[in-house]
Amino acid sequence: MSTDKRGKTETLVQGIAASQGIAYGQAFLYLQSDVEVPAYQVEPEKRMQEISRFDHAILVTRQQIQKIMSEVDKNLGPEEAQIFDAHLLVLEDQALISETIREFETSGRNIETCFNKVSQRYIKAFSEIDDEYLRERSGDIRDVAQRVLQNLLGHSSQNLSQLVEKRVVIANDISPSDAAGIDSSQALAIVTDSGSKTSHAVIVARSMKVPAVVAVRDLTKQVMPGDWVLVDGYEGLVILNPTQQTLFRYGQIQIQKKGFEQRLMEANRRPATTLDGVTITLRANIEKVDECALVKEYLADGVGLFRTEFLYLNAGHIPSEEDQFHAYKAVAESLAPSPVVIRTLDLGGDKPMAGHPHLFPKEDNPFLGYRAIRFCLDHPEIFKDQLRAILRASAHGDIRMMYPMISGRDELTRANVMLTECKEELKAKKIPFNAAVQVGAMIEIPSAAITSDVLAKDCDFFSIGTNDLIQYLLAVDRVNNRIAHLYEPTHPAVIRMLKLVVDEAHKNKIKVSVCGEMAGDSVYAPLLLGLGVDELSMTPPLIPAVKYLIRSMKLSDSQKLAEDALKLTSAKEIFTLCNEFSRMRVKLN
Amino acid sequence: MSTDKRGKTETLVQGIAASQGIAYGQAFLYLQSDVEVPAYQVEPEKRMQEISRFDHAILVTRQQIQKIMSEVDKNLGPEEAQIFDAHLLVLEDQALISETIREFETSGRNIETCFNKVSQRYIKAFSEIDDEYLRERSGDIRDVAQRVLQNLLGHSSQNLSQLVEKRVVIANDISPSDAAGIDSSQALAIVTDSGSKTSHAVIVARSMKVPAVVAVRDLTKQVMPGDWVLVDGYEGLVILNPTQQTLFRYGQIQIQKKGFEQRLMEANRRPATTLDGVTITLRANIEKVDECALVKEYLADGVGLFRTEFLYLNAGHIPSEEDQFHAYKAVAESLAPSPVVIRTLDLGGDKPMAGHPHLFPKEDNPFLGYRAIRFCLDHPEIFKDQLRAILRASAHGDIRMMYPMISGRDELTRANVMLTECKEELKAKKIPFNAAVQVGAMIEIPSAAITSDVLAKDCDFFSIGTNDLIQYLLAVDRVNNRIAHLYEPTHPAVIRMLKLVVDEAHKNKIKVSVCGEMAGDSVYAPLLLGLGVDELSMTPPLIPAVKYLIRSMKLSDSQKLAEDALKLTSAKEIFTLCNEFSRMRVKLN
Repeated sequence: MSTDKRGKTETLVQGIAASQGIAYGQAFLYLQSDVEVPAYQVEPEKRMQEISRFDHAILVTRQQIQKIMSEVDKNLGPEEAQIFDAHLLVLEDQALISETIREFETSGRNIETCFNKVSQRYIKAFSEIDDEYLRERSGDIRDVAQRVLQNLLGHSSQNLSQLVEKRVVIANDISPSDAAGIDSSQALAIVTDSGSKTSHAVIVARSMKVPAVVAVRDLTKQVMPGDWVLVDGYEGLVILNPTQQTLFRYGQIQIQKKGFEQRLMEANRRPATTLDGVTITLRANIEKVDECALVKEYLADGVGLFRTEFLYLNAGHIPSEEDQFHAYKAVAESLAPSPVVIRTLDLGGDKPMAGHPHLFPKEDNPFLGYRAIRFCLDHPEIFKDQLRAILRASAHGDIRMMYPMISGRDELTRANVMLTECKEELKAKKIPFNAAVQVGAMIEIPSAAITSDVLAKDCDFFSIGTNDLIQYLLAVDRVNNRIAHLYEPTHPAVIRMLKLVVDEAHKNKIKVSVCGEMAGDSVYAPLLLGLGVDELSMTPPLIPAVKYLIRSMKLSDSQKLAEDALKLTSAKEIFTLCNEFSRMRVKLN
Repeated sequence: MSTDKRGKTETLVQGIAASQGIAYGQAFLYLQSDVEVPAYQVEPEKRMQEISRFDHAILVTRQQIQKIMSEVDKNLGPEEAQIFDAHLLVLEDQALISETIREFETSGRNIETCFNKVSQRYIKAFSEIDDEYLRERSGDIRDVAQRVLQNLLGHSSQNLSQLVEKRVVIANDISPSDAAGIDSSQALAIVTDSGSKTSHAVIVARSMKVPAVVAVRDLTKQVMPGDWVLVDGYEGLVILNPTQQTLFRYGQIQIQKKGFEQRLMEANRRPATTLDGVTITLRANIEKVDECALVKEYLADGVGLFRTEFLYLNAGHIPSEEDQFHAYKAVAESLAPSPVVIRTLDLGGDKPMAGHPHLFPKEDNPFLGYRAIRFCLDHPEIFKDQLRAILRASAHGDIRMMYPMISGRDELTRANVMLTECKEELKAKKIPFNAAVQVGAMIEIPSAAITSDVLAKDCDFFSIGTNDLIQYLLAVDRVNNRIAHLYEPTHPAVIRMLKLVVDEAHKNKIKVSVCGEMAGDSVYAPLLLGLGVDELSMTPPLIPAVKYLIRSMKLSDSQKLAEDALKLTSAKEIFTLCNEFSRMRVKLN
């Protein structure tokens, strides 16, 4: 057993890799515990003041939560930020607030004591309910209540705001409110006992671009404040008191990773041409107008997927045709002459619009629910505003559009009828638009893939949304940890469906793009190209690695890969085949 | 405009047909409203008594709810009865009860007033939350609170227990507790303003075997108590003050329906042989041992789907190998020599096991979640108990077995490995079983259908679960009302997949059964047979109608039907084709 220079034993603990990177530093141990609340009587003449102190604390707490929300929104997008909606709701719970005031009026005790009593009662009531959902709500109330108490007391018993030097944060758990206290310039890495890849701690870490490892069981019991810790966010490893040898090895790994990243960025300046001379179209997935800068930085061939949900979620209301037009026009002009493929609204499902329960009621199975084109066809007034905005923007650049969640011919026809109506309306008003705007169908529902021969006759291109397609083909919710192992992009059924869609598209002389995560993953990209996919679209930072791989392979080899994959009958065998293909071509050294 | 003999105008109102049948009688109008609660001070010496009165009311309420649960369970099955779990939970909420006691101790007012105050506060708090799920919970609390108050007051302000003559119950809504008050011998039909096909009123009506129509907007405002009402539970019509002509017409319809049912039962005694001489195997879907009587009554060719979840849900715990063995053996012996196909455990998803949140945590998309074979492969101790019980029962009749939710080769292999282990264990202990027990795979996940050529090599038969297969192929939760129109069994993708599965099975010389709802539906059964499906399995009471249709058609015609359907590209066109095929062959007269 080896020891570090201070004589402590090196200990290696395995967790789940949640945010990439390597960090080394001293541990800052953070154990969540409740704020201690002093109790005393308030003199009658100070009662008004006490209530105003309470109001102020509520206000400050709201501002703090909104600050976290906007930071998370900026760094990670609106979906992640929505987690905090539940927290704002707690503050808006009139029962909680008016019961506190009533308790204060009856008892005359300080407002912290009253609020603590009432909120504890709520937390207890919720936590005892035999229902996972409501129990989680109890955690939200607890978190917000602690924050209110800290603001009332003007301090915190133990808080991440005490993190004033660069440290590795090691916690049993990190609540959303804890996140507000973290000075992002001081956290070298985040490690938690509990949590999964989707927990708050991970969102915070990714937003701060620091490594994170979660689900490191009982780590807080093994670490002392000040212990030296090495965090490997690539492999999900935490090494306590690493030896010189370990540090040296990790130093090398970090240099290798950095050197490789540099090589990737260099390669990225050259075209995405295979060794046998075929140039592949690589486009970007974006969701905000200002991401056009990223599209240019990473030299993408325009945008293969412009998600429009952000316009709706960010505004908090249905944006007007005019507002949408300006957003689409800005993207079109910024990237012209490159194409921009706008996906019509894909709200609903896991992306309901907060504050609009009448439009998006809670569903038992949102992924199999009322979303995307289903919602749009049901709300022509909302859908046609968007269609007109897209059409108008098509006069200002190479705008194309596509419908999400098409399940078959009937829906595609209905959507196209509405599009034709919009064109007529614009024509009548003499408003310019590209009459030949290309219209595609997203292939992400199995029934669409199976009837792609029919759909190909009614649209100008296909864009395969592999995330959803795999999810439905395998009946696996990809964000459900318990069955994550069943979400297999290389399942033979997936490969066969991709082949079918590509073949039917090409028979009908239309092109196929893939805009799901498979497109930006070096393990799967060669397989997709080998199957005949014409374009890949991905989040811009993934482009360099995929381009590097494309420049290191022959298209004919990837076609052979696809042929071999189609002969196999096990997801694992196909994965191994694909993984080997990429590894052989992309070496770290 | 025609009027009835009492001079009132006949009015026809359309709702949603929710429970079949026709009823005619006077209206019993039931408008839910809150119990009026008298308020008074309780003398100090009577305070203990007051608390015991409260305890008693809680106890009686619990018994009443349990009584409803057991009736619903008996008539409709355990899943429907689970609705009332939420009600029992309210009674077990210690916060609600202890706050009432505290309120009583502080105020000294009668316990009804205290309970009402506390429960109103809870109802309000829940109802104001901007979350559909929690708002519904508020309805549960209200319903239970009203029931407790009625029990405390020893009366009800207005109650369905006043239904003492045969009447058509017309209500704005019917809460689960209202159901307890209905004397099932006195309700001719149930009609509600609100509700959907899955609402409480419908469950009650179906459990009482009376017609029901729901979502008849504002009907309670148009009806006076004592008005004569005709309820058509086939078409979802309510006719207020029907004329003699209308009554005559409905009298004829009822006679026709009854006559037809009689003819069906007569036809059922003969074999399910088509006009061109092919005999079709019709089996039963059951979930309880005592349903063997139904299997015999309807002359099914054994059981094509024995759901085993009931054994688990009913016991409230994981039943032992021994308990399961006795259940399976009883079914095998009761129906021998006919085959009984046992489906291994399909818990999880929409069928979690109450009280076992550690086994079945709440999921965001239970239909795409941790269920069936996924759960079983993860819990070999539970799964192998069942496999051994099935194997042992195979010594006592023609027991066969099948795995639900198989997604591909890897899962089927893993399940078969466990089965082999169980066989070895039994062999070692010299316990008899049928070593050649037939093992099938359910085809209900798209990936299984697409790779059916692979699966067919590793099992003895296929059973297509069309309900789930359609749901996943179309990405439509079939119990979500908002998208119910998208759940289309005749979607071309569905028909193509069915054809693929049948063809691959037959290439590998194995048989295909269908055990989803399509099998028992006269519109779809000919299509299935035309596609080459070998066996149909359905809930026993549906057998006569399907058999009647089979005896009225040529198999060759249904093959032509399938051929034509495969050429069409729209779900609606295929539905029309199938519907016409059946209508032409089965006429009411």
